Amino acid sequence: MSQNIYDDPDFHDAYRRLPRSEHGLGGAPEWPTVAGLLPEMNDRDVVDLGCGFGAFARWAAEQGARVDAFNLSQRMLARAAELSPAGAAISYQRADLDELELRAGAYDLAYSALTLHYLSDLPGLLATVHRALRSDGTLVLTVEHPVYTAPTSVAFVEVDDRRVWPLDRYGEEGARQRDWLATSVRKQHRTFGTWINCLIDAGFTVRRVLDWRPSTEQIAAQPALAQEVDRPMFLIVTAER
Amino acid sequence: MSQNIYDDPDFHDAYRRLPRSEHGLGGAPEWPTVAGLLPEMNDRDVVDLGCGFGAFARWAAEQGARVDAFNLSQRMLARAAELSPAGAAISYQRADLDELELRAGAYDLAYSALTLHYLSDLPGLLATVHRALRSDGTLVLTVEHPVYTAPTSVAFVEVDDRRVWPLDRYGEEGARQRDWLATSVRKQHRTFGTWINCLIDAGFTVRRVLDWRPSTEQIAAQPALAQEVDRPMFLIVTAER
Repeated sequence: MSQNIYDDPDFHDAYRRLPRSEHGLGGAPEWPTVAGLLPEMNDRDVVDLGCGFGAFARWAAEQGARVDAFNLSQRMLARAAELSPAGAAISYQRADLDELELRAGAYDLAYSALTLHYLSDLPGLLATVHRALRSDGTLVLTVEHPVYTAPTSVAFVEVDDRRVWPLDRYGEEGARQRDWLATSVRKQHRTFGTWINCLIDAGFTVRRVLDWRPSTEQIAAQPALAQEVDRPMFLIVTAER
Repeated sequence: MSQNIYDDPDFHDAYRRLPRSEHGLGGAPEWPTVAGLLPEMNDRDVVDLGCGFGAFARWAAEQGARVDAFNLSQRMLARAAELSPAGAAISYQRADLDELELRAGAYDLAYSALTLHYLSDLPGLLATVHRALRSDGTLVLTVEHPVYTAPTSVAFVEVDDRRVWPLDRYGEEGARQRDWLATSVRKQHRTFGTWINCLIDAGFTVRRVLDWRPSTEQIAAQPALAQEVDRPMFLIVTAER
């Protein structure tokens, strides 16, 4: 059973005020990069693993996809349903991804944004997703980058007048407790190699791997993003069944 | 044309005194991991890209392989030849890997240890290697890890009584000048995604990716290796044609 922080009322309220919650995909600086990696959506069957407030599900449905959107948090699902237009081809469903069951060969695209670093059983979920994809199906996922999940402390420090990211414990995989939005959140640190090897072992062919960084234009518009060049926060991977 | 530091007499002498130079494969802590990823060697054709003093080439020849071993440094090749037993099935050849030409379909295994992070034209070399491998051929490579090549300064620092690696500039790919063995060495920083994507774009299927870390036994025998858990130095990748 995964930790369900998102149903904690205080956490939920704080999370709802994040730019990426308030502004949906437009509040997620990595979205333009991710969007460029997505296959055709029209008339496709899509599963969204960890749908949050449903921003991606709504976007996919607008493109003509049928979407099964899963989340552990009842509160998030309720809010996602509220935000979705009546008649949208989205089925919001509660599920713990550590115990998810999906129909075989049911989807053209599996999408998961910033969710899988919460799971302790990654191979189990990837086996489920592989089986649930059609033979030419695609998996697109974003996770917190290994360089971001590894360290004891996740705050930049000043060394010799430079802003540096205090990397340690990279080779020690496993749980990390983080204080985030006034809650202690449990994440899983995995190295690059483990993310890629888990996909390969589940039968996927890796197609693209990106250590996301903001564009020059994004940094000009939002200077705080410059630190993402020093230390990537997101790893983006696409793979084919 | 690549920088040829290894023919600088002072650098060459200092390099010869490194444990991995004096003790060959036994002085390279990542070797047991790499060895476990290698295919059958007996009666196979092997190309070694950046052979150094020939430790791998000699080992491969002992296993029954025929080896073409390339290096930019005349001094290293001379020493490698000196160290190789008479009649060993090794052909040492001088080449700049940025301009290497290889026969098509000539090899079962392409091996490159701690060399490709010196090259500025990685796609060019990978295209050459892909063409030079037989249809079931394998590529095994080790390079300096992106976390190791990225930063402005490559020395651990103390922060709050912890030893941390001062990561910055991860997203800024390109040349890095390093002072190493009293010489300024030019290396190329590439992100994790770029290493993997260059392999995919050259036509390879990635099979295994490892952020090398020492085993508990290795750390017990050589406590200085513990820092490799905090910050990986080597990325190991195997791929198939």
